[in-house]
Amino acid sequence: MAHHHFTPTTYHQTLAAHETALVVKDGDTVTTSTLDANGFDLNIVFQAADPNPMSGPFFVEGAELGNTLAIDIIKIKMTRVMGWTRQGLAWHVVPAADVRMLPEREKIYWDIAPGQNSITLQSPPPELKNWSIPIVPMIGCFGVAPDGGEAISTATSGRHGGNMDYRRFGEGATAYFPVAVPGALFFLGDVHGAQGDGEIAGTGIETSAEITFKVRVLKTKPITWPRGENETSIFTLGNARPLELALQHATAEMLVWLETDYGLGKIAASHFLGMNVRYDIGNVFNPAYSVACRIEKSALSALK
Amino acid sequence: MAHHHFTPTTYHQTLAAHETALVVKDGDTVTTSTLDANGFDLNIVFQAADPNPMSGPFFVEGAELGNTLAIDIIKIKMTRVMGWTRQGLAWHVVPAADVRMLPEREKIYWDIAPGQNSITLQSPPPELKNWSIPIVPMIGCFGVAPDGGEAISTATSGRHGGNMDYRRFGEGATAYFPVAVPGALFFLGDVHGAQGDGEIAGTGIETSAEITFKVRVLKTKPITWPRGENETSIFTLGNARPLELALQHATAEMLVWLETDYGLGKIAASHFLGMNVRYDIGNVFNPAYSVACRIEKSALSALK
Amino acid sequence: MAHHHFTPTTYHQTLAAHETALVVKDGDTVTTSTLDANGFDLNIVFQAADPNPMSGPFFVEGAELGNTLAIDIIKIKMTRVMGWTRQGLAWHVVPAADVRMLPEREKIYWDIAPGQNSITLQSPPPELKNWSIPIVPMIGCFGVAPDGGEAISTATSGRHGGNMDYRRFGEGATAYFPVAVPGALFFLGDVHGAQGDGEIAGTGIETSAEITFKVRVLKTKPITWPRGENETSIFTLGNARPLELALQHATAEMLVWLETDYGLGKIAASHFLGMNVRYDIGNVFNPAYSVACRIEKSALSALK
Amino acid sequence: MAHHHFTPTTYHQTLAAHETALVVKDGDTVTTSTLDANGFDLNIVFQAADPNPMSGPFFVEGAELGNTLAIDIIKIKMTRVMGWTRQGLAWHVVPAADVRMLPEREKIYWDIAPGQNSITLQSPPPELKNWSIPIVPMIGCFGVAPDGGEAISTATSGRHGGNMDYRRFGEGATAYFPVAVPGALFFLGDVHGAQGDGEIAGTGIETSAEITFKVRVLKTKPITWPRGENETSIFTLGNARPLELALQHATAEMLVWLETDYGLGKIAASHFLGMNVRYDIGNVFNPAYSVACRIEKSALSALK
Repeated sequence: MAHHHFTPTTYHQTLAAHETALVVKDGDTVTTSTLDANGFDLNIVFQAADPNPMSGPFFVEGAELGNTLAIDIIKIKMTRVMGWTRQGLAWHVVPAADVRMLPEREKIYWDIAPGQNSITLQSPPPELKNWSIPIVPMIGCFGVAPDGGEAISTATSGRHGGNMDYRRFGEGATAYFPVAVPGALFFLGDVHGAQGDGEIAGTGIETSAEITFKVRVLKTKPITWPRGENETSIFTLGNARPLELALQHATAEMLVWLETDYGLGKIAASHFLGMNVRYDIGNVFNPAYSVACRIEKSALSALK
Repeated sequence: MAHHHFTPTTYHQTLAAHETALVVKDGDTVTTSTLDANGFDLNIVFQAADPNPMSGPFFVEGAELGNTLAIDIIKIKMTRVMGWTRQGLAWHVVPAADVRMLPEREKIYWDIAPGQNSITLQSPPPELKNWSIPIVPMIGCFGVAPDGGEAISTATSGRHGGNMDYRRFGEGATAYFPVAVPGALFFLGDVHGAQGDGEIAGTGIETSAEITFKVRVLKTKPITWPRGENETSIFTLGNARPLELALQHATAEMLVWLETDYGLGKIAASHFLGMNVRYDIGNVFNPAYSVACRIEKSALSALK
Repeated sequence: MAHHHFTPTTYHQTLAAHETALVVKDGDTVTTSTLDANGFDLNIVFQAADPNPMSGPFFVEGAELGNTLAIDIIKIKMTRVMGWTRQGLAWHVVPAADVRMLPEREKIYWDIAPGQNSITLQSPPPELKNWSIPIVPMIGCFGVAPDGGEAISTATSGRHGGNMDYRRFGEGATAYFPVAVPGALFFLGDVHGAQGDGEIAGTGIETSAEITFKVRVLKTKPITWPRGENETSIFTLGNARPLELALQHATAEMLVWLETDYGLGKIAASHFLGMNVRYDIGNVFNPAYSVACRIEKSALSALK
Repeated sequence: MAHHHFTPTTYHQTLAAHETALVVKDGDTVTTSTLDANGFDLNIVFQAADPNPMSGPFFVEGAELGNTLAIDIIKIKMTRVMGWTRQGLAWHVVPAADVRMLPEREKIYWDIAPGQNSITLQSPPPELKNWSIPIVPMIGCFGVAPDGGEAISTATSGRHGGNMDYRRFGEGATAYFPVAVPGALFFLGDVHGAQGDGEIAGTGIETSAEITFKVRVLKTKPITWPRGENETSIFTLGNARPLELALQHATAEMLVWLETDYGLGKIAASHFLGMNVRYDIGNVFNPAYSVACRIEKSALSALK
């Protein structure tokens, strides 16, 4: 099981069957760099057009249609001390009658101090002059080539993953994607130094990064939507508009997971979910919204 | 500041300017009983028609239009050992194409064991025969008389509160409602012994209860939507369909709260929320859905 | 079958079991006056608070729970020469990103010339200085007392009817409402001199009127949502948010109608609707939107 | 200005920058054949996988980014006597609670009789044994290559057009598409012999066809969403979920059109639309729904 150090030379604004950047084997680990959402690298040099230029694709040997690609996110390292967001909330996260009260969405810069694990505004308004937040890095956009020959913009998301902007896709998490083409063709990028729910500012702390991940090919029952887990939870992602449809896809996928891996029939699963389900809103900003249907592992342990 | 023990004799299926059941003063506490969602009392005797028959209204002296009524939920005591739900998930929490896979929604009974703090299915499917959940009681439906002379069904919710089914309205939480009529006219009922997010089974563990609460009248800046707080969070509730509109109302109300009580202008608030906001889905079942916009107090403390 | 001339002395801002204004019999006709949406009468004198103060309720003898109340709209007569709208479109009928481009929503006045059957702006912008539209009067808000003891604001709509703002409820049309309380308790008001689809300006040409209508009690199979017909079409109304839910309710009600009155089973109805259905958007402005599922009578005649 | 007779040899399931099938000039006309939605030709021989395999792309010389491609639909000729639909309505066009009442969605065959201009069910249920509908052919799916390097499935639609399934795109209509790549790359297919609003059966009368169209390149102000016109109306299309967002896009595009071509400022346009707008629901079935914002030319003539 090899460890690859890979430096991208081309980037992609769609998830599609693009030319392979690197061939890896089931079980390999990769360390690679990612640009920020606007295509700037660790030296703040422009490398590729937005939205969310992707590193990859990584062709995973043995990954076939119907398999599941597991990506263990081992490390997300900040590679520069500047991140950016936009001020003001996305205009559609308040009622239409309130849109005019929101400020213009100017670009804002933040200082990232990895040693102190903190992020601070470069030019804070007075109310926030002593305010900082911890670095909690996450991958905003990653996934596999979709089926049907589509090339789907990295601005949005779908069954193939993509721009889900879900904060639980951080270090220590594993993401699962349905393989739709030979080799899966895995892409990643758009790292955020931190982000709240819903990505309601339209961005997280957008920055460049170095990511180390492990690829695994699972020959288990096919999955339909992205899944994930971390130390404390398992979760499924529905990516769609409106929010309710995203929630519906995530819930249906969790019903399948509970049946396949936990042996719960539909009735048992309804009792279990009715009392234990947690919903997270990954983003309510992108063309497709992302809702996670999540179960805490402590609740799952009560099933034994 | 008096403590009232109040035994309801009439119940209401709408929140409206009904005849006062008890007059209380600012600062008083009340202990009263509530029926389950179908109108059965602690002896499982039918007392009032569904949906969610309410105890009250409590006329709070000094509460005027534009004030805020604070309800401190001091204690929610289980008063019987039986609770019920419905099996199968609500049909609209999966995509339409999956509705036929869901089981029929039969009524299901649970044993509530307060001494052991546990709830178990009376006739569990085999997969769940060793499964129990802790009692985490919450108030499903409570609020004040709405404005405009409306009488709003306890099946739904709005700016006046109502059937929000949000699990963080439990013991130790405070709820805030906008006062729309003299005396506020506070109603409560529909206690759940436990419930996941979204009330996706269409119910929590529906049961009778005895609730002790304190009423306070706040003469501060008027609020528009229900708010709440508990030991760890502050939150606002938007009650509407679709989910996105509920989220929008909750977000706009939080912007006001951050400005009024935490001194954050719109730009500062957008930075703060963009990194710290949490969204909870109270219910995605009732005619109006409920979304909470929530901030952890630990994040607020970083503002100092 | 009597003809009543009724002059309202009180008006209502909710549809509810208010005190009867006039008792009428099955088959009677009534001529009564209505205020404009802001409560001004034919002399532009303020009479009642908004929204949409209603004339009525009319208690219809013999109307029982489960019956259908038919209202034949015989005549809608303009009673003053001034109507008003608001300029600018409702802010939520364009994407959030475009809201700031819309003008402020100031009140605008129009001249209604019944003799010439025309409506013209009092102070038109230059582009519209020669522009006029025909008078095509319609009833914006009408319906019956809802069930469950609710008192529902005339700002919104539901199964009981209410503020549907559907332009096909004009002269010559018949509206059908599900009777939920003894006597049905029929209310009406909010006449528009003209209006496009969706009420996207937030108003029609708001004005006072004199309406002549006939009441009929149908002891046929209960209906669930408002229905209507005119010379060329039959239609059902779904009143809800989001638009898709309104469409779903209207479609399901039409399926029932096609089965009950036209003998079409579900499969035949699906073939027929798939080729013939027309959808109209009554309003996309009020708290509940209104979508009509409509069938042209020429299409129905092909069934014979 | 040449007339091309073009016989496709390859078909596409995405709208994208595929290899040019035929180069045409501004003003040329083309007659070509199209497969049905499942990929069967005039002889009911399978030629290409679904969904909606497209003929094309046609590279239009001189069409540049920012131009508008006008497609005049001159003729849609039925090329076989069999069309198909699916019985039962799409499951999401009724409320979730009613889904179980809908029949299974089996494939159903129809006889198309061009000489008699009629379409009849091959095996009608008894209620429909004398029922026929006229042939009113339309193009279900057509459009241009999208921007951003995307390859978008012909199952859905967007700013580039695609699977809009709008019945007014019939003979005599002109469609306008925003050119996003050199040559525009125009695709077409998925002809329906007839269809109601919303495509609520999930299909129209799906069949093969021969289409004659003229291409024109307009160097006028760029458009953002597809537009169209026929003898009686002009219209804009918004393609998105939910329905409300589709309506918003269509409305915003119409505001631009009224300003650009009819000289109406935002205030004048709001008056005009408020009284004259018509909304049509193209489809409420595909991944993106299509809503048309439409103005009758008779209303436009009142502007002069």
